[in-house]
Amino acid sequence: MPSQRALGIAVIGTGKMGADHVRRLQHVISGARVTAVVDIDENRAKTLADASEGCTAYTEAAAAMAAQDVDAVLIASPGPAHEAALLDALGCDLPVLCEKPLTPDAASALRVLEAEQKLGHRRVQVGFMRRYDTEYIKLKRLLDSGELGRALMLHHRHRNLSMPPWFTNEMLINDSVVHEMDVTRWLLGQEITAVTVHKPAPTSHAPTGMDDPQFVLFETEFGALADVEIFGHCGYGYQVHAEAVCERGTVRIGDEPGPRLSADGRWGGRITPDYIERFDDAYDREVQAWVDATRRGEVTGPGVWDGYAAAAVCEAGVLSQREGRRVQVELTERPALYR
Amino acid sequence: MPSQRALGIAVIGTGKMGADHVRRLQHVISGARVTAVVDIDENRAKTLADASEGCTAYTEAAAAMAAQDVDAVLIASPGPAHEAALLDALGCDLPVLCEKPLTPDAASALRVLEAEQKLGHRRVQVGFMRRYDTEYIKLKRLLDSGELGRALMLHHRHRNLSMPPWFTNEMLINDSVVHEMDVTRWLLGQEITAVTVHKPAPTSHAPTGMDDPQFVLFETEFGALADVEIFGHCGYGYQVHAEAVCERGTVRIGDEPGPRLSADGRWGGRITPDYIERFDDAYDREVQAWVDATRRGEVTGPGVWDGYAAAAVCEAGVLSQREGRRVQVELTERPALYR
Amino acid sequence: MPSQRALGIAVIGTGKMGADHVRRLQHVISGARVTAVVDIDENRAKTLADASEGCTAYTEAAAAMAAQDVDAVLIASPGPAHEAALLDALGCDLPVLCEKPLTPDAASALRVLEAEQKLGHRRVQVGFMRRYDTEYIKLKRLLDSGELGRALMLHHRHRNLSMPPWFTNEMLINDSVVHEMDVTRWLLGQEITAVTVHKPAPTSHAPTGMDDPQFVLFETEFGALADVEIFGHCGYGYQVHAEAVCERGTVRIGDEPGPRLSADGRWGGRITPDYIERFDDAYDREVQAWVDATRRGEVTGPGVWDGYAAAAVCEAGVLSQREGRRVQVELTERPALYR
Amino acid sequence: MPSQRALGIAVIGTGKMGADHVRRLQHVISGARVTAVVDIDENRAKTLADASEGCTAYTEAAAAMAAQDVDAVLIASPGPAHEAALLDALGCDLPVLCEKPLTPDAASALRVLEAEQKLGHRRVQVGFMRRYDTEYIKLKRLLDSGELGRALMLHHRHRNLSMPPWFTNEMLINDSVVHEMDVTRWLLGQEITAVTVHKPAPTSHAPTGMDDPQFVLFETEFGALADVEIFGHCGYGYQVHAEAVCERGTVRIGDEPGPRLSADGRWGGRITPDYIERFDDAYDREVQAWVDATRRGEVTGPGVWDGYAAAAVCEAGVLSQREGRRVQVELTERPALYR
Repeated sequence: MPSQRALGIAVIGTGKMGADHVRRLQHVISGARVTAVVDIDENRAKTLADASEGCTAYTEAAAAMAAQDVDAVLIASPGPAHEAALLDALGCDLPVLCEKPLTPDAASALRVLEAEQKLGHRRVQVGFMRRYDTEYIKLKRLLDSGELGRALMLHHRHRNLSMPPWFTNEMLINDSVVHEMDVTRWLLGQEITAVTVHKPAPTSHAPTGMDDPQFVLFETEFGALADVEIFGHCGYGYQVHAEAVCERGTVRIGDEPGPRLSADGRWGGRITPDYIERFDDAYDREVQAWVDATRRGEVTGPGVWDGYAAAAVCEAGVLSQREGRRVQVELTERPALYR
Repeated sequence: MPSQRALGIAVIGTGKMGADHVRRLQHVISGARVTAVVDIDENRAKTLADASEGCTAYTEAAAAMAAQDVDAVLIASPGPAHEAALLDALGCDLPVLCEKPLTPDAASALRVLEAEQKLGHRRVQVGFMRRYDTEYIKLKRLLDSGELGRALMLHHRHRNLSMPPWFTNEMLINDSVVHEMDVTRWLLGQEITAVTVHKPAPTSHAPTGMDDPQFVLFETEFGALADVEIFGHCGYGYQVHAEAVCERGTVRIGDEPGPRLSADGRWGGRITPDYIERFDDAYDREVQAWVDATRRGEVTGPGVWDGYAAAAVCEAGVLSQREGRRVQVELTERPALYR
Repeated sequence: MPSQRALGIAVIGTGKMGADHVRRLQHVISGARVTAVVDIDENRAKTLADASEGCTAYTEAAAAMAAQDVDAVLIASPGPAHEAALLDALGCDLPVLCEKPLTPDAASALRVLEAEQKLGHRRVQVGFMRRYDTEYIKLKRLLDSGELGRALMLHHRHRNLSMPPWFTNEMLINDSVVHEMDVTRWLLGQEITAVTVHKPAPTSHAPTGMDDPQFVLFETEFGALADVEIFGHCGYGYQVHAEAVCERGTVRIGDEPGPRLSADGRWGGRITPDYIERFDDAYDREVQAWVDATRRGEVTGPGVWDGYAAAAVCEAGVLSQREGRRVQVELTERPALYR
Repeated sequence: MPSQRALGIAVIGTGKMGADHVRRLQHVISGARVTAVVDIDENRAKTLADASEGCTAYTEAAAAMAAQDVDAVLIASPGPAHEAALLDALGCDLPVLCEKPLTPDAASALRVLEAEQKLGHRRVQVGFMRRYDTEYIKLKRLLDSGELGRALMLHHRHRNLSMPPWFTNEMLINDSVVHEMDVTRWLLGQEITAVTVHKPAPTSHAPTGMDDPQFVLFETEFGALADVEIFGHCGYGYQVHAEAVCERGTVRIGDEPGPRLSADGRWGGRITPDYIERFDDAYDREVQAWVDATRRGEVTGPGVWDGYAAAAVCEAGVLSQREGRRVQVELTERPALYR
């Protein structure tokens, strides 16, 4: 039974994602309320805080974490700011939901890993929200059930309508393919051991200098192979497909659901334009699950090890992208806390 | 902006549906908490109340409604008990979410209609949860957009794995087809003016004396035609399909979504076994929307007029079922409050 | 083993359908060649005949049937001309493939039935080509296999982009719904015993005076119910759907196959514009099966009884359409030849 | 207009494929008849010849080709026998449909290429039947139309229920992936310039020593990337999927069509067990198109250059498979005859 008192949450970062999480916590999620918002932009923090009763604005994460009415922390600031906020929260022994990436590189992720180990218990969940998507959950259950035997290959498709102009080749790996890295590890229960990035002739709709689409191959510790088509400027909508090839069957998710229309000589339906709409329910489920687990004193979602492993695979991916060759992934030994 | 204080809700009736709503209000819905549960079975009420802090058990709905911490009422008792609870709640001027049916017949529904009119403002929402189902919402939006022109026909399929042994011919209309009555009225924005029930040779899996499946035709005030296949013992799962035939296109909802499996010489996926799983999200959205609207002092969902109209169409349907002929639906004039 | 000599075929009627069958027989079908074409328009017949070596033009069907090189007859003239041609062919004891309808009414169909009975063996196949469509064949096999138990209901959808301007209300029954009459009888193995035609408010795209769409109910001798949406001006393409509701499952055919495109914010594909494209393969299979059976001296397809039964049901349908009531179908006793 | 006389065809090889082509030519194809069958097994040839009037059995291809009633040759003998038969046919200047592979290696394919060049006109079509499959044709048309812009990537899936026990790793490339090689070249209108074969941990259902599944990457001359999942023992049926990723959209073929069944808690349908059933229509269309073109004195299908290019890519594929590295494809200059 959850405790009666609603969980007081400090939301760090009030950009697009942070503001959306404040809305979610106030109006969708049961058992939590936002008691603090933190942003280096004081005005933005204040505007957001004023709209919610009992919510205080801060410009320093540490100050918010020290407040009496803050029970947990949701980090939605830019990646480079994560390490400091995570270390602060671990210092206060506060539960954290940290938007992906955990940190921008493996070395900093390793420092967070060490800090949590020193604390001696798990406090941090990383925001890999696909693990909370209905279809991915069904796929995971099916694979875990053993009904189809061992998984041999995974085929991923990850298509975006377009990318903001400041998006780079590296971000295709670090911000987009990172999701496939995580679901590959999660679905298979295996670490990724090598990455190869291929670059076909780019679409003319990509900005100059960007290789788009790219095709990424993952090898895993027990020999499974996963491929990812990452396409930043497909021009027609947001699509995330996955197909698992197993010993006794194959299974596919991501086909568009919903009204099937017949008109103007065509059958079919609408494609979601972006990840906000496509994964809206997944974000809701992720945050609700985190609030529920936190109130029970548990961490049930992807943790620091998952954030660290993703960072290490991303580093290998970016190297392969640059040098056009297969790159081995080097991971530290998995600490007992994460086994 | 919703008020800060969570809405205190009295749940009347603690059977399967009532207990599920208590769970929903406590763990899923934001901005509400259950402060009272009412059941003539005192033990059942007490057990449920004890599991939630700040929740009191009652055996009388009127007593619960008089309590300081009760701001709104959710009625989930058996249909015959609805009228008294509704009149009590209207007497206290309390917002109500009443599970369908509003009341079991048109005459009693009319009395509730009159009581709310006397009160002078709308307080009651009826639990037609399909209006909160994602696919039905998309269908409604598409029809309202005018993109496909006027709707000419609706084809409904409503299939159940099986029915409890005490289910009757009349209940196929009153408890099952009532949903198609409501969505037909809602999707088209037209009243139903006549009903004809056809009975093909029954399946051998139906209990003796039950005509299952049945095929129901609705005529509407502006000449649209809607047909309903109601099948109580289809034997393979729960399916709800709808197809709208419009002047410039057709649109279909209800095809099973998600993971597409290939194994054992077959492609395809799983069918939901029951309405609880199929419409779980719709129930969540319905109750959240009701809580949100109530906190804003509004009624936004289907109201007493919709409950009354459904009751009147059901009466005509049961008569047609019995006498094997087309039966006209008689409705009182629509009061100004519901225009 | 078919005989070595190609079957010499007289094609009667050289309109759209007749000319298409000449092309089919010359270029697609194995084991047959067109040795005669007959049309009251001598020029049209001559032009067609001149294009094929060894093919003679006639203006009289009887003359063609008397020719040495004519082994079988394909009738593709307008319906009112069928009876005379059929009686001529039966008089010559020639195998016939007669485009639907067999004849335009039950009385004339009965005369053909009597003529074939007098002949003492079956010679005539009627052109209900849906029986040769891959999907209908799979549906029929599935129903016959008993895997799903007894069929309780059939739902048919029959939509056309538009109809020629001279198309009438009666033709919606006689030329369009007649296909659903035949497949209902064939799929269920039951005669149709009553017809009711419903007319919702028509689409504004139908010509003045035409009730379009219409909704037709068939009752069958063992209590199955079949409904047909016939829509002459759906405006977006040609669609033929069927769904069988059985004791242990349901099965649906007619969903558009083929490339699934994602572009411009939509997923989906193309709808065939007309029956020629939709049933092109079915026509090929029908004519090939008829040629093969004829060379073996057999009749394997739908026969005169099927043509007669369709004519009788059509008469009842047109009466129901006119008078707005359920009309019983009266059939003569089924002769031994057709059991 | 085709000539009146049916094309007399010599079928060389009377194994599974050859016998099926004899049946096809006798009973399905218009305008052709089998006048000769050739097999080193005299009894088998004789049995087959005796079943068709006017058909002679031979044990030597050259003797059959010299016969008066042989106008064209269909080669369906084992691959190693193709070169001799092809050179014979070219020596007689006879039209040939040669089942894939053209020849088992690039060197022998080059000798056929030179022989046809010496002859000075094209006579040989290679049996890449996927080019005649309805879905592939629609995909090709869509790509050629330019509607979706340039193709950037192709994703192929090629799954077999199981393989005969004598099937080898090399045959996965030479007999299975060869189809994807051809359709990749055909769909894109580009040569394949490099091949890389990946071998995930094999399924336990593959015979010892076979690496199954494998994952093959093709690079093409203008930078497109194509990947192929080849799975010899998927255990559930025969599936061939293709997806083209273009600048303005994506398009997918190969989803199973046909009756959609709901029963036993599952929706879906049947998967074809083998290529014979899946590509039956494609074989019919291929042979009919070849017969029609031959009667017009043309070659319209894939030719010797396509057979040679496939052989060269296969050689590179087998090398990559053995050595676990990317292998460049070396092609001779394309002769004028094939431009």
